[in-house]
Amino acid sequence: MATQGQVITCKAAVAWEPNKPLVIEEVQVAPPQFGEVRVKILYTALCHTDAYTWSGKDPEGLFPCILGHEAAGIVESVGEGVTEVQPGDHVIPCYQAECKECKFCKSGKTNLCGKVRLATGVGVMLTDRQSRFSINGKPIYHFMGTSTFSQYTVVHDVSVAKIDPIAPLDKVCLLGCGVPTGLGAVWNTAKVESGSIVAIFGLGTVGLAVAEGAKAAGASRIIGIDIDTKKFDTAKNFGVTEFINPKDHEKPIQQVIVDLTDGGVDYSFECIGNVSVMRAALECCHKGWGTSVIVGVAASGQEISTRPFQLVTGRVWKGTAFGGFKSRSQVPWLVEKYLKKEIKVDEYITHNMTLPDINKAFDLMHDGVCLRVVLSMH
Amino acid sequence: MATQGQVITCKAAVAWEPNKPLVIEEVQVAPPQFGEVRVKILYTALCHTDAYTWSGKDPEGLFPCILGHEAAGIVESVGEGVTEVQPGDHVIPCYQAECKECKFCKSGKTNLCGKVRLATGVGVMLTDRQSRFSINGKPIYHFMGTSTFSQYTVVHDVSVAKIDPIAPLDKVCLLGCGVPTGLGAVWNTAKVESGSIVAIFGLGTVGLAVAEGAKAAGASRIIGIDIDTKKFDTAKNFGVTEFINPKDHEKPIQQVIVDLTDGGVDYSFECIGNVSVMRAALECCHKGWGTSVIVGVAASGQEISTRPFQLVTGRVWKGTAFGGFKSRSQVPWLVEKYLKKEIKVDEYITHNMTLPDINKAFDLMHDGVCLRVVLSMH
Repeated sequence: MATQGQVITCKAAVAWEPNKPLVIEEVQVAPPQFGEVRVKILYTALCHTDAYTWSGKDPEGLFPCILGHEAAGIVESVGEGVTEVQPGDHVIPCYQAECKECKFCKSGKTNLCGKVRLATGVGVMLTDRQSRFSINGKPIYHFMGTSTFSQYTVVHDVSVAKIDPIAPLDKVCLLGCGVPTGLGAVWNTAKVESGSIVAIFGLGTVGLAVAEGAKAAGASRIIGIDIDTKKFDTAKNFGVTEFINPKDHEKPIQQVIVDLTDGGVDYSFECIGNVSVMRAALECCHKGWGTSVIVGVAASGQEISTRPFQLVTGRVWKGTAFGGFKSRSQVPWLVEKYLKKEIKVDEYITHNMTLPDINKAFDLMHDGVCLRVVLSMH
Repeated sequence: MATQGQVITCKAAVAWEPNKPLVIEEVQVAPPQFGEVRVKILYTALCHTDAYTWSGKDPEGLFPCILGHEAAGIVESVGEGVTEVQPGDHVIPCYQAECKECKFCKSGKTNLCGKVRLATGVGVMLTDRQSRFSINGKPIYHFMGTSTFSQYTVVHDVSVAKIDPIAPLDKVCLLGCGVPTGLGAVWNTAKVESGSIVAIFGLGTVGLAVAEGAKAAGASRIIGIDIDTKKFDTAKNFGVTEFINPKDHEKPIQQVIVDLTDGGVDYSFECIGNVSVMRAALECCHKGWGTSVIVGVAASGQEISTRPFQLVTGRVWKGTAFGGFKSRSQVPWLVEKYLKKEIKVDEYITHNMTLPDINKAFDLMHDGVCLRVVLSMH
């Protein structure tokens, strides 16, 4: 390729400072080093985790940076030692790496991977602890090891999943975060069985993916809880069978749900990131076996609490990251399931826009009828 | 039997008021009603849960009452409708009932049972919501559905396990609470696998039973944590391989353990009932899979807390009651294991006393070298 080994100058949305509008800049993207892959991003979606770091509330957020972690593209070039992808491969960047060699990957018990986290956690690449992004020589930090709000990005080879080139990248970009997180919370983390009663707190993309996963698992009742009644119509299409708006009740929502379900639900999922809701989600579970899974990301420093009696009497409190899916191994499998129409993806996309509209796209995200906005990058 | 159908007058230790010495009284024990069993208690042990309710800190504690829940005896008579035990059977009263018919028992997911809890929780029998204990006509409340600090007690038929009459009752009385709680926390609730690293907070009877269970499960390291160094020598005999006294360290104990174990333990058990220790027990678990089980009973109103990130990154928080054992089904099996010398029991008994010494026995319990005191009741 003409660009291989060269610095590429392209457009990216740069977050110069917390809470200030993103600025479309010409950025320089250095060639991939050992174990790295440079990807031409064709489509990226927006996720609340981007907005959280952008807001400045994430104490680990580093600025200036290039946000974005839910995307799809094509490999432009690879660094030395990269064997599993090559230029031209269609890929989804994965903020959860999978090296297949570390203690975590080998444990068989988790999808977390320890290989590149110390670098990606501080916005640099592992090999030389430097960023591959710069503007006129000034480094711009990476974000979550993905930085997909750029027309080109550099990722570690353990952070990229090769997918079937037939798959439409403007759709399957969603398989980089929200949809797998919800499906996997049900299938991998909670392991919901047929006939279960499920409660879902928060009916955004992740909550709806939980509903879809629960329906596929054969749940008998899927109770959606949200303070925005506008979300209820859409939620039905994803499998939600009953709706509760906590604002319609004086009693604590956990008590409302316990009363409605003869003692509580079998599984609950918190898809908001609110620590009070996390408590309600645990406490609406059935004594003896109810399991609550924290899917949402709470603001830094906040804590969850409950009476230990809740656990001693059989409830289980867990959490999930990327739905427990092993990224490089299983994202391609999710793409296949989409191609076979076994999971929804298109239905989560409510808006299509282009990179220059990114600030407007973030504004839309806070509207109750918006699920995912997909940006065309070129 | 001569006593069948008659009121029996016998000796019992009565807790007239919170935190006042127990008084050995002549009590009247009414005949068992429908679905009830009157048991001649031969041996009872003391447990911290008795002391907790006695202290007045248990908001559900009712006075006057007859405490005690870890015991063994012989059925004296049975009420109508009782089919599974008969006079002369050797039995262990079970504070966790097992009716085999309720939603809980049928779930296959829990050892909790819903049948008699509403009565036993308020110190009475299910049939008529009355106590079977009285002194000169004044009712004395039952406790935990067992009240074993009496020479005779009345229990629900779902709360009594028939055991092999060969078993020495002065030993197997311990299988009514502490030892099964510890073993079951490992085998049923945590399901510790061979090679696991285990941390145990609190090296009393329950903590040592956790160690014994972990050793039997093939744990590679069993780390005991206690602020009383006197307990360490005994703990070795139960399988503890390493000791940590938090007082010897300036760093938080969870950090000490994480540093010692290359990232944390696979399983931890809180066997004290202290909510700060419960947090430490969770946070010393390995990212990705570490599971913490709350075994101890915290004081009323106290809450556990942590950052939700602890769970989102793969730790699991659970609890256990009676170690997850189904009482009537599995206590007899534990007795068989004891008879085959597959589990320890004798080794937990450090003192043998008689009913009139019960107040001294409780004083002993607070000494670090005391594990279980067994009282002979006749």
